[in-house]
Amino acid sequence: MQQAIAILDSGVGGLTVVKEVMRQLPQEKIIYFGDTARTPYGPRSANEVRLFTKQIVDYLTQFQPKLLVIACNTATAAALDYIRSAVHIPVVGVIHPGARAAVKTTKISIVGVIGTEGTIKSEAYVHALKQLSPHIQVIQLACPSFVPLVEKGLFHTKETKLEIEKSLAPLHKEKMDCLILGCTHYPFLRNTISSVMGNEVSLISSADETAREISTVLYHHDKLATSNAIPIHQFFCSGDSKLFQQIAQEWLGEQIKVSPVVWQVPRII
Amino acid sequence: MQQAIAILDSGVGGLTVVKEVMRQLPQEKIIYFGDTARTPYGPRSANEVRLFTKQIVDYLTQFQPKLLVIACNTATAAALDYIRSAVHIPVVGVIHPGARAAVKTTKISIVGVIGTEGTIKSEAYVHALKQLSPHIQVIQLACPSFVPLVEKGLFHTKETKLEIEKSLAPLHKEKMDCLILGCTHYPFLRNTISSVMGNEVSLISSADETAREISTVLYHHDKLATSNAIPIHQFFCSGDSKLFQQIAQEWLGEQIKVSPVVWQVPRII
Repeated sequence: MQQAIAILDSGVGGLTVVKEVMRQLPQEKIIYFGDTARTPYGPRSANEVRLFTKQIVDYLTQFQPKLLVIACNTATAAALDYIRSAVHIPVVGVIHPGARAAVKTTKISIVGVIGTEGTIKSEAYVHALKQLSPHIQVIQLACPSFVPLVEKGLFHTKETKLEIEKSLAPLHKEKMDCLILGCTHYPFLRNTISSVMGNEVSLISSADETAREISTVLYHHDKLATSNAIPIHQFFCSGDSKLFQQIAQEWLGEQIKVSPVVWQVPRII
Repeated sequence: MQQAIAILDSGVGGLTVVKEVMRQLPQEKIIYFGDTARTPYGPRSANEVRLFTKQIVDYLTQFQPKLLVIACNTATAAALDYIRSAVHIPVVGVIHPGARAAVKTTKISIVGVIGTEGTIKSEAYVHALKQLSPHIQVIQLACPSFVPLVEKGLFHTKETKLEIEKSLAPLHKEKMDCLILGCTHYPFLRNTISSVMGNEVSLISSADETAREISTVLYHHDKLATSNAIPIHQFFCSGDSKLFQQIAQEWLGEQIKVSPVVWQVPRII
């Protein structure tokens, strides 16, 4: 049986990583878990996010994946190091790939980051960027309203556009040549974010960059898929599976089957 | 003492990787070896390139580097797997990073590759691209005249421009949306190559992409530099150290010291 890449997110955001893995690594089998019953993770405490992430990782390890992807910036900020020490397979988060791409892209060493409150408050991007390049300047902005809009499937409404314009307004006075979409939900809103920010700001999708990092890590572990057979992906979610399926099919452009998962765990820290 | 990244090339080409490592990972110390006495590697047999590469790796390992970079496409094509099995540190070649970037960049799944005769004949890019994405179409072209021009420091002459136009002419009838500069010497000629290929073809520098891959591999091995001290790099070359120093200082935009190395090894196989 082909070993899969396990990808988890607080909801549908990680599907942006799934879409890029399907495009950049079409031979790889994917097992996805969206914790739609407990989304959004952004306003939760780091401890709670860490607990939820560990529960999903425990669920996914039953499939014996070859690589684990924390496709949620909030969960990466709160739980990456913890999960890396808890499992015996490579773990890829979504923060370092975006940081690496930003360091490569910026010509003026000023980088913008938008994300959930949890991600911004953790300063995980600031740490990741400065670990690579200490003199880099980072401008952060939390956009707490974006994830709920995406989880409801409201990508192209007039209200969504107005909300994005309002949220990003503080960035207009800042000088930067690239902006990290520091939440895997944000590529759903990419076109509008791009038109608000203008052509001179390169948008960096942590989803696209993570797919590429997955490719690198699999290669260096000699774990890239060798079969030419078309992989059959599996999707799980903890909440409304019909809404999840609808959003996923629209985003991925293909039919998928979604298996609902009911958590039998207490909602405590 | 800070552990260095060891970078080798047939000559000055790997300096394009050095420049990007200095930019993307300014805290990392670099030890560079350019085999300028035996450049170009392109027309040599794979066996000979493998022997030369191993000799340089043996020289560089005396410095106990934490990572080894084969910053030469010809040497990567001929010797990457061999060197990976021969040393106990991570080894990064320049072919897979470029291939990964191309798979991410192309929207029409048609990718061009230019390189030395050795690189093109090895089909290393074709294999790397198709390993990731089997349906991708690859258009290859050998440009044997480019490396000697760069090694002589002739980046911006009228003759160089004419030679580039003539060499790339066969690509004009081909459809592609990205072109891999599949030789670390080629970024020296990037502006002219770009003007010949036109705006619709994205150029992918294996040098830029390799610097990013180095960042990824160091991170996943917990080997990123932690010191904020400015690193002092070391440069060695086997040929004319004055010409090497002149080209290196022009390219890197800073003063460097070059130590000449005289090989005491037979030129056989």
